[in-house]
Amino acid sequence: MNRVLVTGAAGFIGQAVASCLISRGRDVVGIGRGLPPAGLDLAAWNGEGVTLETLRDCAEGVEEIYHCAGSGSVAMSLQCPDKDFACNVVTTQVVLEFARQQGGPKVVLLSSAGVYGTLDEMPIRIDSPLKPISPYGVNKVICELLIRQYAQHFSVPATIVRLFSVYGEGLRKQLLWDAGHRLLRGDGTFFGTGTETRDWIHVDDAARLIVAAGAAARADVSVINGGTGRAVAIRTIVEGLAARLGGGCDIRFDGQVRAGDPQHYEADIAQALATGWRAEVGLEEGLDRYVDWLKRTVTGRETGDRK
Amino acid sequence: MNRVLVTGAAGFIGQAVASCLISRGRDVVGIGRGLPPAGLDLAAWNGEGVTLETLRDCAEGVEEIYHCAGSGSVAMSLQCPDKDFACNVVTTQVVLEFARQQGGPKVVLLSSAGVYGTLDEMPIRIDSPLKPISPYGVNKVICELLIRQYAQHFSVPATIVRLFSVYGEGLRKQLLWDAGHRLLRGDGTFFGTGTETRDWIHVDDAARLIVAAGAAARADVSVINGGTGRAVAIRTIVEGLAARLGGGCDIRFDGQVRAGDPQHYEADIAQALATGWRAEVGLEEGLDRYVDWLKRTVTGRETGDRK
Repeated sequence: MNRVLVTGAAGFIGQAVASCLISRGRDVVGIGRGLPPAGLDLAAWNGEGVTLETLRDCAEGVEEIYHCAGSGSVAMSLQCPDKDFACNVVTTQVVLEFARQQGGPKVVLLSSAGVYGTLDEMPIRIDSPLKPISPYGVNKVICELLIRQYAQHFSVPATIVRLFSVYGEGLRKQLLWDAGHRLLRGDGTFFGTGTETRDWIHVDDAARLIVAAGAAARADVSVINGGTGRAVAIRTIVEGLAARLGGGCDIRFDGQVRAGDPQHYEADIAQALATGWRAEVGLEEGLDRYVDWLKRTVTGRETGDRK
Repeated sequence: MNRVLVTGAAGFIGQAVASCLISRGRDVVGIGRGLPPAGLDLAAWNGEGVTLETLRDCAEGVEEIYHCAGSGSVAMSLQCPDKDFACNVVTTQVVLEFARQQGGPKVVLLSSAGVYGTLDEMPIRIDSPLKPISPYGVNKVICELLIRQYAQHFSVPATIVRLFSVYGEGLRKQLLWDAGHRLLRGDGTFFGTGTETRDWIHVDDAARLIVAAGAAARADVSVINGGTGRAVAIRTIVEGLAARLGGGCDIRFDGQVRAGDPQHYEADIAQALATGWRAEVGLEEGLDRYVDWLKRTVTGRETGDRK
């Protein structure tokens, strides 16, 4: 048997994970809202929400489940906490319950650096205290507790991948998208000090790590930080975008600091490296590709999906 | 306004909480499966499950919510984890979301000593590490995380009451019920060593503490252990039942120890005492009352509810 399930397979990360699995010859079943991702035919696609019924309909007997469905928006979790709970917590419980009833295919959960909250010590190790500062972060901690519950009591082997700042072609939100559009409008003023750092990982690298995490799933739950181990300042990203977009407006940061916003993120990626995975898309190449895609998008020569 | 909501108001603890609130002149609205508890008329009763719709139907404008709905069965959580998740986690999220949308009535959550798992140090303080050993215990930890999420981000003041071993007339499960029936059959053999301890609290005392917890609800969430601060051995309870039931069979424990079963529970009740609450039903009186009720129940002179 070579069948695997990807939930949220039409989403930014789920799409990349499905592509990566298909390229390795896996028989991928997808579930998610919208059209199926490139490479997945409609027969292997279920365009419904994640419920026990839809999983039973399409995913009986899968060997691995890559649970990429869910919301990744802190802002949404503050506006509509019930929606974040439904998208993140309830779908995870449903996937785990399905896995239990199936006798334990491996489950990979996409968690987030948001579970750590604000930490002083860098790089962030997987055994750091979990002190989330948003409803989204709390809900991801809850997902992790559920994963451990099902692994410990119901023999569902699992890996948790705590993703840091995933970016790449197709991402229509967050810093690169917002900053790119601002620069295209000739506006070079940005929030913050510019010295805040994030650990950026290209979505293709993230997808390959998530697939590696499937093989690393264990009865006692393995945890992997999904980053590159390199902290890069927001200013570096914005200047990189500006250089590629041209236009020449001055970059200025307003110096504001939002209470509770983490200033720095840098992942300890020992567990990622232990799987044999290595990042392949460097930041320069990643920015090149993102800006190429962004230009095609704003000029209307790109219609929607990632590649 | 003097209106309060009790969820699970037909259940063992919910019924006692509703009675206590009614005796203090509160205008109690109840929701729960089955018939309304004594003292609550049908107009103030909603016999549906806990959903946003049912809460909006019956509980607009309440000042306090005593969330007593939920399952308290570790065994069930091992058999049907999805059911435990639905009964405990999902109902709690619904109650909190309702409270958020209502602008923040106070919420009292019934949690459990099960969140602590197996600890060495007695008495158990509220800042002890939470290391639950059952799906039920994990789900109660998740409920506590949700309470903190809604308190911190959505201004819902709350108290968490971690109940220890609640017993009393009307309880048709757990040690007193099972042991009482075993003794009535003339069987004096029990599981375990008999030296295991629990912190027993009579349901009337628990109800008064839960009502006191409503007043103690805070924006940063107060936590209260719900016990009496006294560890009593299982053997003492069984012998107390045997003495009251007569029959004279020998009490014997089989000496087995289940891996992971906590051996001792004794609550640090500093926070409970700080509310002004004191336990009023001593163990001797509590056992008297339980055995009287049990005798009436088995002879068919008691039909169902607690008093």
